[in-house]
Amino acid sequence: MQFEHAMERCVRDVETALDGLLPPVAGPRGRVIDAMRYACLGGGKRLRPLLLLSTAALFDAPAKSALRAAAAIEMVHCYSLIHDDLPAMDDAELRRGRAAVHRQFDEATAILAGDGLLSLAFSVLADPATDTDPAVRAELVGGLARASGPEGMVGGQMIDLSAERWSLDLTGITELQRLKTGAMIACACASGAILGRAGKEDRATLAGYADDLGLAFQIVDDLLDAEASTEALGKPAGRDSAAGKATFVGQLGPAGARDRAAALVDDAVGRLQRFGNGAETLCQIARFVLERGH
Amino acid sequence: MQFEHAMERCVRDVETALDGLLPPVAGPRGRVIDAMRYACLGGGKRLRPLLLLSTAALFDAPAKSALRAAAAIEMVHCYSLIHDDLPAMDDAELRRGRAAVHRQFDEATAILAGDGLLSLAFSVLADPATDTDPAVRAELVGGLARASGPEGMVGGQMIDLSAERWSLDLTGITELQRLKTGAMIACACASGAILGRAGKEDRATLAGYADDLGLAFQIVDDLLDAEASTEALGKPAGRDSAAGKATFVGQLGPAGARDRAAALVDDAVGRLQRFGNGAETLCQIARFVLERGH
Repeated sequence: MQFEHAMERCVRDVETALDGLLPPVAGPRGRVIDAMRYACLGGGKRLRPLLLLSTAALFDAPAKSALRAAAAIEMVHCYSLIHDDLPAMDDAELRRGRAAVHRQFDEATAILAGDGLLSLAFSVLADPATDTDPAVRAELVGGLARASGPEGMVGGQMIDLSAERWSLDLTGITELQRLKTGAMIACACASGAILGRAGKEDRATLAGYADDLGLAFQIVDDLLDAEASTEALGKPAGRDSAAGKATFVGQLGPAGARDRAAALVDDAVGRLQRFGNGAETLCQIARFVLERGH
Repeated sequence: MQFEHAMERCVRDVETALDGLLPPVAGPRGRVIDAMRYACLGGGKRLRPLLLLSTAALFDAPAKSALRAAAAIEMVHCYSLIHDDLPAMDDAELRRGRAAVHRQFDEATAILAGDGLLSLAFSVLADPATDTDPAVRAELVGGLARASGPEGMVGGQMIDLSAERWSLDLTGITELQRLKTGAMIACACASGAILGRAGKEDRATLAGYADDLGLAFQIVDDLLDAEASTEALGKPAGRDSAAGKATFVGQLGPAGARDRAAALVDDAVGRLQRFGNGAETLCQIARFVLERGH
């Protein structure tokens, strides 16, 4: 119950922060800003922002700083969804229950809206309003840049689109996941720790938590793709198996995949013990990831 | 003669820096890195790096720092060329005398290679190796993020693709140019000044120089598009007039456009007088922009 409130509050606060940070729709370049706002506002679980805000709260980082960083990481997540949905990539028409950006606008605007969100995210992080200490801002930028670039999300998406994708073994799928979704989930937790001036050991603990959580998240994603309806997901279901892609469910079977995700979530929660009750929200996020229906 | 040497040295040094900063082509994500390297290496005038290096040298900033920042800004320039050339955007097959990235690889890889270069650029700037002072790194990031985002290059490209593009008047074309090419040229000069700890007045002078230079650059670009051959340009010539787009040449006529560019370059050079002989390379860059054949 308390956790649902925390989630709802995060969704509301991140929406407000994004609305304030995205430029207003005006002038001849208004169309790209309109598309950026369409992609970012009014939907999404806001998992990465919730992780960032909860981690920052663990170390009593200022809420305003954490919200700006959370909005920046969500901008990068939304940019990645826009580009992933393009006809040349996953060619998806539906996202968050609405038309994908390239269907609502057009391909060129979608490409530019994604590009614009990526730049804007770094602009937000580099701004003194995010943290008075420039070393903190530079570290946030470096972390998000690595997580979103060729050694992170972009690298993962490349593997996902590659010919070898169809014949990956469990190690290969895990490596793909680590880059494509894991790096940004880890970045969310690391960013909260950076804002909170967390020590080395606390950071290492959170990195372990994020790794377990990211992998569990992807396994559940595969289960949902295999078992949930398009309506429940808000995006086309059954695409991976229809395309013959190797998935965690294909490798482990539905029951095995569910067991593996549950074990990872137990591990993730176990790691947080050293933080005591302060990490309760992070524990609940891990359980939510396991039980989510979309 | 001395200037040609400076240009050649810049081209060589930036090539080496980019080669060292781009990841090696390896593993299942190697294809996107291959495309990033293809887009960045072995071509280009390196105008933005030359501006950055020359400005940094004016204030005796360390050459190693300046080269990293120059490579980062060139990565962003190369990413913008990849995305601009995509079928959904300008649909260009040729760039720097070679196949555009989406022709040499494929559309998905081209989109990802652009995305990867944008993230990598910020990763390079945020790295302590670029400058020991995190305030300098954060300022570099903020400047590049604004210049490349919706208030800069992305906004300009949106206007360039918009329906109104065909009927812009001189004010509209100037605003488009200021965003699409001017912002990054200004960012190059500003970055050199940031690395060199330049004072407020010096920064303002350089901003004025960059504004004049950027506008002159675009006017000459329009003249070349109208008058040069595809072979000389290394990219398709005559595209703007064939598409019926409003250009500086269309508005001012060829002779008027040439006069305007020359006057802007005179203004740009005049502004640099306060720096004395130290700004000789920046003066020569301005004259080169006017006289270039591609």
